[in-house]
Parts: sequence; structure tokens; C-alpha cells
Amino acid sequence: MRVLAFLDGSLADSGAAHLRVDDLGLLRGDGVFETILVADKKPRELRPHLDRLARSAAMLDLPAPDLAGFERAARAVIDGWQGGREIALKLVYTRGVDGDPAGTPTAFALGVEVDAKVLRAREDGVSVVTLERGFGPDVAEHAPWLLLGSKSISYAVNMAALREAARRGAQDVIFTATDGSVLEGPTSTVILAKDRTLYTPPSTIGILPGTTQYALFRGAEKAGWNVKVEPLAATDLARGDGVFLASSVRLVTRVHTLDGVALPDSTAVHQELAAIYESEYSG
Amino acid sequence: MRVLAFLDGSLADSGAAHLRVDDLGLLRGDGVFETILVADKKPRELRPHLDRLARSAAMLDLPAPDLAGFERAARAVIDGWQGGREIALKLVYTRGVDGDPAGTPTAFALGVEVDAKVLRAREDGVSVVTLERGFGPDVAEHAPWLLLGSKSISYAVNMAALREAARRGAQDVIFTATDGSVLEGPTSTVILAKDRTLYTPPSTIGILPGTTQYALFRGAEKAGWNVKVEPLAATDLARGDGVFLASSVRLVTRVHTLDGVALPDSTAVHQELAAIYESEYSG
Repeated sequence: MRVLAFLDGSLADSGAAHLRVDDLGLLRGDGVFETILVADKKPRELRPHLDRLARSAAMLDLPAPDLAGFERAARAVIDGWQGGREIALKLVYTRGVDGDPAGTPTAFALGVEVDAKVLRAREDGVSVVTLERGFGPDVAEHAPWLLLGSKSISYAVNMAALREAARRGAQDVIFTATDGSVLEGPTSTVILAKDRTLYTPPSTIGILPGTTQYALFRGAEKAGWNVKVEPLAATDLARGDGVFLASSVRLVTRVHTLDGVALPDSTAVHQELAAIYESEYSG
Repeated sequence: MRVLAFLDGSLADSGAAHLRVDDLGLLRGDGVFETILVADKKPRELRPHLDRLARSAAMLDLPAPDLAGFERAARAVIDGWQGGREIALKLVYTRGVDGDPAGTPTAFALGVEVDAKVLRAREDGVSVVTLERGFGPDVAEHAPWLLLGSKSISYAVNMAALREAARRGAQDVIFTATDGSVLEGPTSTVILAKDRTLYTPPSTIGILPGTTQYALFRGAEKAGWNVKVEPLAATDLARGDGVFLASSVRLVTRVHTLDGVALPDSTAVHQELAAIYESEYSG
């Protein structure tokens, strides 16, 4: 099932047409989005997601989004949802219709079922390939027009990378910079566990700050882990106790195979981290 | 005015909603496009544009587009047009609705008026800044998932680069690779004229092969110019007889200022090249 809501809180038929063909979101991929997990009617990390939407919008010089309106739309989707206990809730915000003198953005919230592949990956883990992203780790800071670290809807490269992974018999991707450092997944944050420390690369190298990674690190610190945000080399990944891809809907997914080579079994670490993450939302 | 047509040749109200919010063209910038100039009811370089649409679609693993249908839609837009003598005719082709088991792409042709800024730029030329694209010139060939050289609708970076140019008081951009070589404009091909030779970089460095550049080179050869497709350094640009940005709707636009420095006057060369280009479509 799918539930669509606009920023005034009204629900609409998601199977009907609502967009003009000259929306710049479609013609130019000119917009930003967020995907939020809703479990048992409760959106997770709603405020960090809204803040990140506003940050992405600012990177694209879009008008500041009406966050109260997005919250209202999110609530309307949740209240109108008749499906399973989880919702993948998308917030979408585009520059609106090309040539509109008022410059009115297009904005909506859309709830969809969690994909069956994601549910399987949460249980079984994933096989991942590293793919070059083509950039150096220092380009983001001095070339903001590359929009690195924004969550724009111009996601064609991310989707192409996932198809390349499938061609290689894998389910997901870790992008690397030209110097071999770890960037991010096409739709996830990379986390390395080693000696009771969690590592993730800093967003300054041109990656999206991860809301799920942040929540996990917060919980892990409380549970006695060390957490470090620092550059990682791709060659480090095979030398730890576990590699994980974190994102709102996939949660903390275990990487069992990297570039065709099985990683050391991280099932126990995964169970511990998954429990830590869930404990952030219980009680 | 705007005229919208679908691939069966039917016209539709471009001001009405025709797309679902869960079109992957919007959610993921997952699609390809072309923009074609129509002058006096005649589309220019229609076949090369259709071929490039098919090539871009293949790079994104989209189903092969129905080119006869796109031609039919283009014809319907042209026949239905009541505006000025020129039309900017967009062909758009997306992966369609997320989760659609039939995988039916979204496809349409949309005719719009030529932008007033473009008309001015054709006459007055443009001030251009060079901006880093962040890639090396060799990455395209071994990392096809970066989709370099495809005309995908994931154009947010191209649009951000144009806004950066505006912030610097310029109207357009020439992207450079990490080694300082010339790539392309966000929506154009770069051409250098020097000693009766026209130069443009090869598409193998990760840029879109230009239909207008190709037509100009074809005409220029007939008119006695030499043409060369070879790598150019950004530092070469100031040392020739003229720098031009070519694209379907802007035609061959003169660059009068590069990174804030006036280039040698290329008005006469521009007049000659503009006439050569137009002669490809007269008679």
C-alpha cells in the first residue's frame, strides 16, 4: 500500500497523477529528499531527518522547506496507513514547475511498504562490492557545486552503482574515493566495528551524515563502545570485527562478503549492534 | 506557451498533472532526456538526438526507447505549436513508476519557448567561469556506473554549477577535470577556434557527444576549416581565436570573458561559425 499526503495534511490518491511534466524535480533531478522509518506509528529520528532535509535544500539554494508542513504530512501518512507495522516514509521537495514566477516548490510525503529485499538483507546480511566514486576525498569542501553530502534526488549514479553490484552478484556497494578511502554506500553509511570501537568516515569528505549511524553511535556509547568519526581505508574493512551498512529502512545491515571474499563472521557483533540500535526506540 | 505530447501522438494539457509522485524520474532522477531545437517547424539533428537518447537509456539500463513513438510525439508538438518560430523540444524518458511490475517507462515530448536569457546570450555572448568537476579524465571509461557521458535527468550538479557561476557574476560554466583539462559546460559542448582549426575534447573523457558541435564541425569542414577532436587544457582556451559553447537551443554561443578576464574579440569568428552552422539547415 502507498499513502500520499501534502503539507497541508491532506491525503491524496497515490495512484493518481499529481505532478506536471515540467516539474524541475523530474526535468532536472532538482530537489531533495529524506527516507524515514516509521515503526508502530512512530517515526524514527524525525527531527534529524527534517534538519537534514533543510540542510540539503540549502545546498541546492532551494527555499527553506516548511518543516512544520512536512511534519504534518508525515503525521497524515502515518495516521492514514493501513499496511504493516513499518512504513518507509519519503519526504520529497523539488524546485517546482519550470518557469513558475512564484517559484513554489513541490512538496509531499509518501509512505510505502518496506521492500522485501531490504527485509531479507536485515536478516541475511549482504554481499558488497567496492566501486570508485571518481572523486578525491578533499573535493567536497572546495567545490560545493558538486553537491556532495546533499541528499538530492539526482540519484541516477547511485542506482547505476546498485545495478553494477547486481551484475557482479552482489546486493550493495561501498563507494571509494580516488585515494582508496571509504566514502559511503549509494543509500547507506559505512560502519566498521573493531576492538569494541565503531568507526565511520567524516561527512567532510563529501558524504551524507547518516541519521541511523548517528543514532547507533549514540546508543553504542551508552553501551560502553568507543565511537570514532575518522577516515577509513577500504583495506581496513577486511581487518575488523564487522562491516555494516546503516540506513533508516535497512537499519544496521551486516556485510558478509566484500568484493567476493567472505569477511570474518560478524553475526554476534551484528546482533549486539542491532539490539543497541533498537534500544534507542524502546520504552 | 507549452505543448505536451505522448508517444501515441496525442496532445495533452501541459498545465495539468500527468505524473504520479512515485515516478522514479522524480524520486531518483532515474531517466534520460534530450533537448532539440525546432526552427520553422523543422527539428534540427532529430536523428542524432534520438540516437543519443537511446545511447543514454542503454547506459542507464533502461528499456530501449520507442524512437518512432518519440518521433511521433515530437511531430505532434510541432504541429500543435502556436508560439514563436523556435521551439525548445524536450524528450523525456524515465524508468516509470516505482515498483510497477510491467516496468513501463514514462515518456513524453514537451515543447517550450526558447528562454529570453538564451536569446540574449546568442547575441551578446556570455561570461564563463571554469569550475572543477572533481573527476579525472580517465575515470569514465573504467567506471561506467558514474554515467559520465549519459544525458540523465540527474542534473542537480549542472544546475548548481550554473548558480555558482551567477554568484560569480557569470552566465555559464566550463567544467574542468582534475588534471586541468577541459570537459564540457553543464548544458553545452566547449569549442576552441585557433588558426582556422576547431577543437573539442573527445567524449571518451566522460562528456556528452555534442549534436550541435558535430553539426558545426561537419559544416566547418565543408567551409575549409580543420576540425580536431582531442584533449584541451583549460589554459589553452585564452590562447586561441575564440571559445564557444555549443548546444541545441543556444546554438554556437561566444564566450567573451573567462574567469573574469576578457578574451580576445572573437566577434568575426563567431559570425562566421554561426553562419556555417545555419547553412546546415538552409535550402
